[in-house]
Amino acid sequence: MSKLYKKKKTIGHPPGTILDTQNLNQKVIISVFDYDAKNVQEKNFEKIEDCFPFKDSPTVTWINIEGINSSIIKKIDEHYGIHPLVSEDIVSSGQRPKMEDYGDYIFIVLKMIYFNDKVHDIVDEQISLILGSNFVISFQEQEGDVFDPIRKRILEGKGRIRTVGTDYLAYTLLDAVVDNYYVVLEKKGDDIEKLEEEVMLNPSNSIGRKIHNLKRDMIYLRKQIWPLREVISALQRDESDLIKKQTGVYLRDVYDHTIQVMDTVDSFRDMISGIHDSYLSGISNKMNEIMKVLTIFAAIFIPLTFMAGVYGMNFEFMPELKWKYGYFVLLGLMASVGFGMLFYFKKRKWI
Amino acid sequence: MSKLYKKKKTIGHPPGTILDTQNLNQKVIISVFDYDAKNVQEKNFEKIEDCFPFKDSPTVTWINIEGINSSIIKKIDEHYGIHPLVSEDIVSSGQRPKMEDYGDYIFIVLKMIYFNDKVHDIVDEQISLILGSNFVISFQEQEGDVFDPIRKRILEGKGRIRTVGTDYLAYTLLDAVVDNYYVVLEKKGDDIEKLEEEVMLNPSNSIGRKIHNLKRDMIYLRKQIWPLREVISALQRDESDLIKKQTGVYLRDVYDHTIQVMDTVDSFRDMISGIHDSYLSGISNKMNEIMKVLTIFAAIFIPLTFMAGVYGMNFEFMPELKWKYGYFVLLGLMASVGFGMLFYFKKRKWI
Amino acid sequence: MSKLYKKKKTIGHPPGTILDTQNLNQKVIISVFDYDAKNVQEKNFEKIEDCFPFKDSPTVTWINIEGINSSIIKKIDEHYGIHPLVSEDIVSSGQRPKMEDYGDYIFIVLKMIYFNDKVHDIVDEQISLILGSNFVISFQEQEGDVFDPIRKRILEGKGRIRTVGTDYLAYTLLDAVVDNYYVVLEKKGDDIEKLEEEVMLNPSNSIGRKIHNLKRDMIYLRKQIWPLREVISALQRDESDLIKKQTGVYLRDVYDHTIQVMDTVDSFRDMISGIHDSYLSGISNKMNEIMKVLTIFAAIFIPLTFMAGVYGMNFEFMPELKWKYGYFVLLGLMASVGFGMLFYFKKRKWI
Amino acid sequence: MSKLYKKKKTIGHPPGTILDTQNLNQKVIISVFDYDAKNVQEKNFEKIEDCFPFKDSPTVTWINIEGINSSIIKKIDEHYGIHPLVSEDIVSSGQRPKMEDYGDYIFIVLKMIYFNDKVHDIVDEQISLILGSNFVISFQEQEGDVFDPIRKRILEGKGRIRTVGTDYLAYTLLDAVVDNYYVVLEKKGDDIEKLEEEVMLNPSNSIGRKIHNLKRDMIYLRKQIWPLREVISALQRDESDLIKKQTGVYLRDVYDHTIQVMDTVDSFRDMISGIHDSYLSGISNKMNEIMKVLTIFAAIFIPLTFMAGVYGMNFEFMPELKWKYGYFVLLGLMASVGFGMLFYFKKRKWI
Amino acid sequence: MSKLYKKKKTIGHPPGTILDTQNLNQKVIISVFDYDAKNVQEKNFEKIEDCFPFKDSPTVTWINIEGINSSIIKKIDEHYGIHPLVSEDIVSSGQRPKMEDYGDYIFIVLKMIYFNDKVHDIVDEQISLILGSNFVISFQEQEGDVFDPIRKRILEGKGRIRTVGTDYLAYTLLDAVVDNYYVVLEKKGDDIEKLEEEVMLNPSNSIGRKIHNLKRDMIYLRKQIWPLREVISALQRDESDLIKKQTGVYLRDVYDHTIQVMDTVDSFRDMISGIHDSYLSGISNKMNEIMKVLTIFAAIFIPLTFMAGVYGMNFEFMPELKWKYGYFVLLGLMASVGFGMLFYFKKRKWI
Repeated sequence: MSKLYKKKKTIGHPPGTILDTQNLNQKVIISVFDYDAKNVQEKNFEKIEDCFPFKDSPTVTWINIEGINSSIIKKIDEHYGIHPLVSEDIVSSGQRPKMEDYGDYIFIVLKMIYFNDKVHDIVDEQISLILGSNFVISFQEQEGDVFDPIRKRILEGKGRIRTVGTDYLAYTLLDAVVDNYYVVLEKKGDDIEKLEEEVMLNPSNSIGRKIHNLKRDMIYLRKQIWPLREVISALQRDESDLIKKQTGVYLRDVYDHTIQVMDTVDSFRDMISGIHDSYLSGISNKMNEIMKVLTIFAAIFIPLTFMAGVYGMNFEFMPELKWKYGYFVLLGLMASVGFGMLFYFKKRKWI
Repeated sequence: MSKLYKKKKTIGHPPGTILDTQNLNQKVIISVFDYDAKNVQEKNFEKIEDCFPFKDSPTVTWINIEGINSSIIKKIDEHYGIHPLVSEDIVSSGQRPKMEDYGDYIFIVLKMIYFNDKVHDIVDEQISLILGSNFVISFQEQEGDVFDPIRKRILEGKGRIRTVGTDYLAYTLLDAVVDNYYVVLEKKGDDIEKLEEEVMLNPSNSIGRKIHNLKRDMIYLRKQIWPLREVISALQRDESDLIKKQTGVYLRDVYDHTIQVMDTVDSFRDMISGIHDSYLSGISNKMNEIMKVLTIFAAIFIPLTFMAGVYGMNFEFMPELKWKYGYFVLLGLMASVGFGMLFYFKKRKWI
Repeated sequence: MSKLYKKKKTIGHPPGTILDTQNLNQKVIISVFDYDAKNVQEKNFEKIEDCFPFKDSPTVTWINIEGINSSIIKKIDEHYGIHPLVSEDIVSSGQRPKMEDYGDYIFIVLKMIYFNDKVHDIVDEQISLILGSNFVISFQEQEGDVFDPIRKRILEGKGRIRTVGTDYLAYTLLDAVVDNYYVVLEKKGDDIEKLEEEVMLNPSNSIGRKIHNLKRDMIYLRKQIWPLREVISALQRDESDLIKKQTGVYLRDVYDHTIQVMDTVDSFRDMISGIHDSYLSGISNKMNEIMKVLTIFAAIFIPLTFMAGVYGMNFEFMPELKWKYGYFVLLGLMASVGFGMLFYFKKRKWI
Repeated sequence: MSKLYKKKKTIGHPPGTILDTQNLNQKVIISVFDYDAKNVQEKNFEKIEDCFPFKDSPTVTWINIEGINSSIIKKIDEHYGIHPLVSEDIVSSGQRPKMEDYGDYIFIVLKMIYFNDKVHDIVDEQISLILGSNFVISFQEQEGDVFDPIRKRILEGKGRIRTVGTDYLAYTLLDAVVDNYYVVLEKKGDDIEKLEEEVMLNPSNSIGRKIHNLKRDMIYLRKQIWPLREVISALQRDESDLIKKQTGVYLRDVYDHTIQVMDTVDSFRDMISGIHDSYLSGISNKMNEIMKVLTIFAAIFIPLTFMAGVYGMNFEFMPELKWKYGYFVLLGLMASVGFGMLFYFKKRKWI
Repeated sequence: MSKLYKKKKTIGHPPGTILDTQNLNQKVIISVFDYDAKNVQEKNFEKIEDCFPFKDSPTVTWINIEGINSSIIKKIDEHYGIHPLVSEDIVSSGQRPKMEDYGDYIFIVLKMIYFNDKVHDIVDEQISLILGSNFVISFQEQEGDVFDPIRKRILEGKGRIRTVGTDYLAYTLLDAVVDNYYVVLEKKGDDIEKLEEEVMLNPSNSIGRKIHNLKRDMIYLRKQIWPLREVISALQRDESDLIKKQTGVYLRDVYDHTIQVMDTVDSFRDMISGIHDSYLSGISNKMNEIMKVLTIFAAIFIPLTFMAGVYGMNFEFMPELKWKYGYFVLLGLMASVGFGMLFYFKKRKWI
């Protein structure tokens, strides 16, 4: 549940405030890629100041910062002229995905989602991007390897990435984030499929909890993906010079992917709701089964017990008791009543 | 379930990548129609290169490729100047139906849907169309006969097809795809009608599964048709020269058909939801029936058994036991209690 | 159910094809009204060719054709220059209501709905209208008397009808169709009101079926009316010269009526859904009643039977059996246990 | 229920027809206010003709007609040049609230809603307004006192009413209508609050009916208010000279009120739906309680009865029967079985 | 419930009326901040007239009035030229949040929401803002400390607040209001999380009430937040000179926060609805458990009791009774029947 909302830390403070609470002085990993069509250099720095010389080079510079450290972010702010609201958003992990065009740069907040095998749950990480004319600064909350294929592509010069600008780089980062949604959805799709089988075979109690958890996951995924769609749509419609026209077709492609992710989440929701309905009718059917067993036993033996009770009475004058075959006649009568009831239930298709 | 989402194969690769995994080196069937109002020629080629000479002819050329082979697609890309994202979409079978105008050509992805009698289920196949000024290239995932009537129409010159351009040919292909939805819907409509009868007569357990499966089918159909509607609507609104004005009326017609398909799917969903409600109240009614039988038996025989039990006690001084007609008086009393109960239940309309 | 979708007959044929299957060679009734403010003539023809001379007269000509005959439609097509897609739509009875402006004429498809007392069900009939500058051609699937009041109005010159053009005539036909929805809704409103009473008094099994049928009717009506609304709205917005400005206020009026019909259908759906909820809680309440009866009987007599059972045991040494008033003491004890239970259930408000 | 739709009376008649059926020759009360900033006169007339001289005076004239009389409406039509469709709408009581701008005048249909204490139900009355440049004609279906405060305000010259034009008068009438919705909503809000308490304490059968009735009322209110919102919104957007600019702020105010009424109805719907859910789970909980009582009795006494039954058997050789303390040992055993069961149910928290 | 609607007090009065009913002559606390970039003065006045001299100073003046006193509001109206409708809205506490641009000033109504620990419930307070070119007047219904951090910020000159105009001050007040929603949501989020655990462990009766209350809270929060979103959106779009361009980015930020609050409320609604579903299936499962216990007891002991009953009969000729080991044979038979039943239930997984 706690995934569904994050506490806002800066209540009552002026906008742009970065509080020193939280673990905002993490050790961070700073890696820089500086490339154009011909050359590429990759560097890892300890101090953010070392990145600043790249600012004025005409080449594309990608600064990736893993870990959130408020003093580093303040320095970047000053050097690159970033609005204080942006800094506040980078350090607050509960942001809604959004895209804001500040003229000189575009600020993008995303949610990376992946399935954590240790806690058997979906976890998310906030990715913040600052896209300038010749630089992209990306912030990750934790160390991660999700951008490794992009690093490799830049180093090897595979695809168009080295020949085009910062907007294409931002697109590849976006695309990597969206791709991760597919991985999570496949995992959840398998869970739903398994649950569907299970609910048909045996609607046991534990299924209720599983359905509940899947529902919660879908609420969560939908909450993350819906604004992501808006972000990419806003990037497409953006008329700033930072997004070149030929990048539009790629943004359209990643937009289609978010729509598809959205569609799949909605289908999953419908599926889970269908499974819940089947579960409920399964429980009711089970109760009917139990009731039938009870009723069959009761309806057969209660009349027989009554008959036995009658001839267990101690009246002095009960002529049947004296009959030689009274006992056997009664046993026969009991048998026919019993089988009669069985036949009746058979006819009603209860057995 | 697995129909509801397809795994994305190219995660972590640059856009436009065609992976060599999957069975992408299938043997393909290449058939070419080249026609104008007067002449028509039909050819089957082994090699895609044989189709290329038609590119520069002013006549309409329809290249239909059954089976997905990545090397052939790469060659088409190069020769016709197709964007790499298009190729990636053609080979990835989990695409959402979409329409993309690349200026020189329009790229359309569709889902052909048909009912497979062998697996007793709906299956889908991705159809990709590239519509240029004098050519249409269509890709089918498998060998199929769904375009046969169109082939026949071209050969026989029936209708307007030979006298008009590539946009009309693309429309006929679209129309053939949408027509198939009607076939599937009729099949499902019959299933719903049958189920409706069944649920009224006997709400047995197996109906739960049938309802669940129909619901799933509707989720699936809706997911396919919704974007199809957008595709055709986008074609109608498209201002490129590739779609001539007089084709607009035909696109409007096929658009109307998708809306009708959509309406029908929505009605079916409402119907199935109504059937589910009837099923649930059917189960509850059945339980009431069972409970009534149990209650009637219990309420009649439990008091009688008690009366018999009283006169089975071994107290030394029980005056009734000595009475000559005690036994018969008691039997009479029991009968009147029993019939009294029956009368009571009759009055409450339980019997 | 079969009302909810109609089979599309022309799958795999070129657009504009009229198949000779179906009963499309029905004997048709052709009636013609030709009028202006001063004169009116009414004629019935056997052959459609007899109507053609009216085409060039400046007066308003209304050709009403009851029954669908494909050869007649083909002749009209040729003479009036109608698009083949229009003809296909006229002969296919499963069309969605729509309005298409072809420049020289406007084509309108409507669904006439009426309650058929013989089959105790709603039936629909497709009405197609072709509205030209000086003619209106209307096609009915069957012989019908629904346009009789309009005929009478034209003959008697009542209202504005004779003094205004073809667009006003088309409006009166539309209005007559929409008026019929009110008739059907009143009938269904009465049914809902009756059902509402019934479900409160006795939630019997048969109500489930009635609710189901009403739901289905509403799905059906909604499916018909929704596109009708669009048709009239499109006519209002249409900028062609065929719809004169002063007719706008009448179209607005009939548009208001469709909105009202729509509102009423939606209210009915909500009502029926409310009745269903009441039905379900009624079933549950009934089960509670049954359970109470069972529990009361069981809870009173099972302990008493046990007490009787104890003193029916055959132990040699059971002192109570020897007591003189043992039997009566026990009877008293049993009575107090029984009445105690009754008192307990009274207190819990079960009785 | 019958509130939810009104029968359309003029089916099959030309538009603008006023039928003489219905009680349309009611005796009516005609009251006229004629005022400007300095002077005001109030008059009651028997004949509508007496009002006509006011038509040409520059002062604001408010003619209020209580009761519907078709002949009077016809005379107004002729004198003021009102469109026949307007007259038809005034006499047909089942109109949907709407606003129509006829150029010289604006026609507004409203629904006045009030709670009738006699029938313990919401009743509605159609209010029709014709707003001209220097006159407002209002039609009420019945005698009513809802406009009395406005009359008083005009006479006393309180507020701005005397210094501004007909549009402000129309606004005050609208405002009076919307204010009445608040009164009805407060009444219903109290009902919901009471029901909420009741459903928590004792989910008895009668609550089902109350919930059903409240649901129906909300469906009804929503149906009335939704178009009212559109009416006021259309008045705000209207660009005719009849609505002066400075009246806009008042229309915005009354618009805000309708939105608030709408919001409240929607919240009430959600509340009632929540109460219904609580009611259903209340019924289920109650059944669980009943079942528990039954099960506890059965599970304790059925085994004990069996034990008694065993020692009531008449076998010749049953050693326990001969034991001196057999009876007491058995009683002890029975007691421990009984208390064991009680302990078991206690542990399962059933008691 | 009473939170969901407020009674409208001025029904039947002219707009702009301030009634003297209600406790509108509260003692109020008037505090004034007057500041520019260099200087700041804070004053508390007893009489509103003391504030008026600040009107003509070029500095930013913030007048905060805690408590509603109609005579004070009337004086402000006159001095600042406020529209009477504004005054009416300030004193009526049931206003819907809204924003109205009156040209010279903008009027904003907000709902401050906080969790009251005493009544363990959410309470709201209406905050009204009048934003002029050089003054902001804020009205609070009660004494409160929610604006204290803003006061401190102004005094200390922290952040941008002293260097920018009245629109930024209005933004900080808005931001403070929205921040409070987070606090309430966190509290409710914790409640939901707790409830989720509880419903899985033991779906007891009290949970029904808790779910109902949470649902009601969400209906309430949604009703408050939805119009708040519109207010901030309208401020953003407002083209008046009162909102400077550079304030836009801050309004966008607070808009994002309202969207996030909205999203969270919607997720919470979905969560609660999921919990309700789990609760219902939990109740059904519990009933199944109870039924199983009953059925197992009944099905085992009823046949055994019958067998005991048979040998308790008093027939003279019952050969088994004479057998030496008859009793033990029967006991053995009974044991095998009993264990047979247990084995059967084990196999059906009932035990």
